[in-house]
Amino acid sequence: MARIVKKFGGTSVGDVDRIKNVAKRVAKAVEEGHEVVVVLSAMAGTTNTLVGYCREAAPLHDAREYDAVVAAGEQITVGLLAICLQELGVPARSFLGWQVPIRTNDVHGAARIETIETVALEKCLAEGRVAVVAGFQGIAKDNRITTLGRGGSDTSAVAIAAAIKADRCDIYTDVDGVYTTDPRIVPKARKINKITYEEMLEMASLGAKVLQTRSVALAMTQGVRTQVLSSFEDKPGTLVVGEDEIVEQEVVSGIAYSRGEAKVTVVGLEDLPGQVSCLFGSLADENVNVDMIVQSASDDGKSADVTFTVPEDDLKRTVKAIEGKRGQIKFRDLVYTGDVVKISVVGVGMRSHAGVARIMFDTLAEKGINIQVISTSEIKISVLVEAQYTELAVRALHTAYGLDAS
Amino acid sequence: MARIVKKFGGTSVGDVDRIKNVAKRVAKAVEEGHEVVVVLSAMAGTTNTLVGYCREAAPLHDAREYDAVVAAGEQITVGLLAICLQELGVPARSFLGWQVPIRTNDVHGAARIETIETVALEKCLAEGRVAVVAGFQGIAKDNRITTLGRGGSDTSAVAIAAAIKADRCDIYTDVDGVYTTDPRIVPKARKINKITYEEMLEMASLGAKVLQTRSVALAMTQGVRTQVLSSFEDKPGTLVVGEDEIVEQEVVSGIAYSRGEAKVTVVGLEDLPGQVSCLFGSLADENVNVDMIVQSASDDGKSADVTFTVPEDDLKRTVKAIEGKRGQIKFRDLVYTGDVVKISVVGVGMRSHAGVARIMFDTLAEKGINIQVISTSEIKISVLVEAQYTELAVRALHTAYGLDAS
Repeated sequence: MARIVKKFGGTSVGDVDRIKNVAKRVAKAVEEGHEVVVVLSAMAGTTNTLVGYCREAAPLHDAREYDAVVAAGEQITVGLLAICLQELGVPARSFLGWQVPIRTNDVHGAARIETIETVALEKCLAEGRVAVVAGFQGIAKDNRITTLGRGGSDTSAVAIAAAIKADRCDIYTDVDGVYTTDPRIVPKARKINKITYEEMLEMASLGAKVLQTRSVALAMTQGVRTQVLSSFEDKPGTLVVGEDEIVEQEVVSGIAYSRGEAKVTVVGLEDLPGQVSCLFGSLADENVNVDMIVQSASDDGKSADVTFTVPEDDLKRTVKAIEGKRGQIKFRDLVYTGDVVKISVVGVGMRSHAGVARIMFDTLAEKGINIQVISTSEIKISVLVEAQYTELAVRALHTAYGLDAS
Repeated sequence: MARIVKKFGGTSVGDVDRIKNVAKRVAKAVEEGHEVVVVLSAMAGTTNTLVGYCREAAPLHDAREYDAVVAAGEQITVGLLAICLQELGVPARSFLGWQVPIRTNDVHGAARIETIETVALEKCLAEGRVAVVAGFQGIAKDNRITTLGRGGSDTSAVAIAAAIKADRCDIYTDVDGVYTTDPRIVPKARKINKITYEEMLEMASLGAKVLQTRSVALAMTQGVRTQVLSSFEDKPGTLVVGEDEIVEQEVVSGIAYSRGEAKVTVVGLEDLPGQVSCLFGSLADENVNVDMIVQSASDDGKSADVTFTVPEDDLKRTVKAIEGKRGQIKFRDLVYTGDVVKISVVGVGMRSHAGVARIMFDTLAEKGINIQVISTSEIKISVLVEAQYTELAVRALHTAYGLDAS
């Protein structure tokens, strides 16, 4: 007997028939003798409809009221699943965020979970019932509903799993696991059976989009064994675990890519103290998240070119922020483009293996792909290349690192 | 400056544009210096959709889960109205049932309000803000959401008005007030400016359908001055008040009719002790609400015919219940029909006026309408007639009692 948290997303609970399917899946786990807590999102489309209402009501709206409105979505699905489970003879009851309660800070619309009280959930499980908990929502100190921001239900599930010391947190999605790369680009991509938190974090934040970055980070710090699996097929998915659970580590686990990047180059930045700090300070003030950074000396030797990447959505704000500081930041020109992609090779094994970067550079050079920016961490190497080379680069690297399915 | 509770129904908040209109109306009252609490229903159609989901999930569903699901409807509208009010520069915040809290018993799906805590609402008003409260919902002792049953938002509004000692409770509907009779039948029907609780109660339960019977009863016992008015036009409606507020009382205030009735006659019931008690006992056991009752001696002198009315929806159950007791209840035949209508003349003035009944009987006789059953209370006379005479009877009585608009 294990204690399992199961999270189902919006498409898995998109209508009552699908909710009935979720109920069958949960009932099966209960029959196998497991204690189950289910975490649900709203029906696919519902949250968008509710967000649309708020925008229609006022372009700039009170985040507390927004939270009250959008939290209604999960309220509907948890009640319905509890009904479907009971219909199958499985005792169950629903919990809204404030009923658990899941306590958060008061940053409405993007709240962080502070504590989850387990008394009510433990009582429910002890009575042999399935607890069906509304994801994405919590309650602030002033008794008002908060939401965790988009995709927050994954975070709710992992946080609940940590709080009740669950053996595993299953995240059901519309894909059947994490792949070595995007199968739409590389048909020979393989499903990964086990991946470390660190790798998953790089894969998720680099665009693998299977699990919310924030939930992976939480799973890592709390040590929650997390499984990504399909809500439509009945087979094992990808298990996200600590490094100690993976005996034979691959050097490279996967190739990720991220299209939503923009490259900005500040040309001829004067070589004076504080210029770079002033540049990035102005971006930090605007809450722009800068990713890769390269600085190179200019031809004249008295100035430098600074190149960096930002999310494409933040490009306008970035340019505006820098132009707005023209008095303090002294530079010749500002060049930018959204026509770039970041491609990353990820693997905890590369810590103990030399030559991983070289394979990447050789492979790209062989295909005639020019690398614009490079950045590395302990377990990944990322390069920025022209967007038109995305598929070519990903396919070539997937083969070069021996990831193709045989 | 007055303290006013304003309640808007489902059609008044049917979409965001209509919610914006409600906001304007509330803003106007605030500008006039009033303290305002708003009570809302769900968007028209939403509750039906949610109820449909529950039925689709399971024909017989846990009422506690049903309540959690359907309460989501009001959660959406209160948040949106708060946003719309803020957009107009009117400080406002939403309250769900559990946030007020509105405490109810635990009869899920048809809960009764026990107490309404006023601390949070009073604080909100003292801060100069409009409190926007979700109607129809409350919270039971075990911290689970309850709903008050269909039309419960009227009851929420009146109960809140009583709790915060409001000067008036305005119920906005899609009609502009209470009429002397149904204007679709009698074009000369007049809007009533003031009506007593007792009369309104008779009018509502007799089919005038403007205000929920339960909310009128509550307004009467709590002495809440209640106004029924249009949410689409800006003019006074009908004020429902105590008798002391109405100086010159009309003898008859209105003519009501109710189609959903069925007549049942137990023919040749044996004249033995306990037979009638056994007959109506069997119906009480089935929760059938018996309305008018007439007993007449049979031709043979040894038995009696008992005629009574029940809601048409309960006719099948009624017949089944009586047939099921054939051993204990001794009778010759059971005759029933749904082809009847109850027509009532209502007015507190008839207490002190003789001849009111006679006008009714004369008028109907003149038109050749046969009266099947009669029942009376202090302030009303009801007759049961064949359904085909509905319009004819209502029009004739409206004229006979001098209610036609000049």
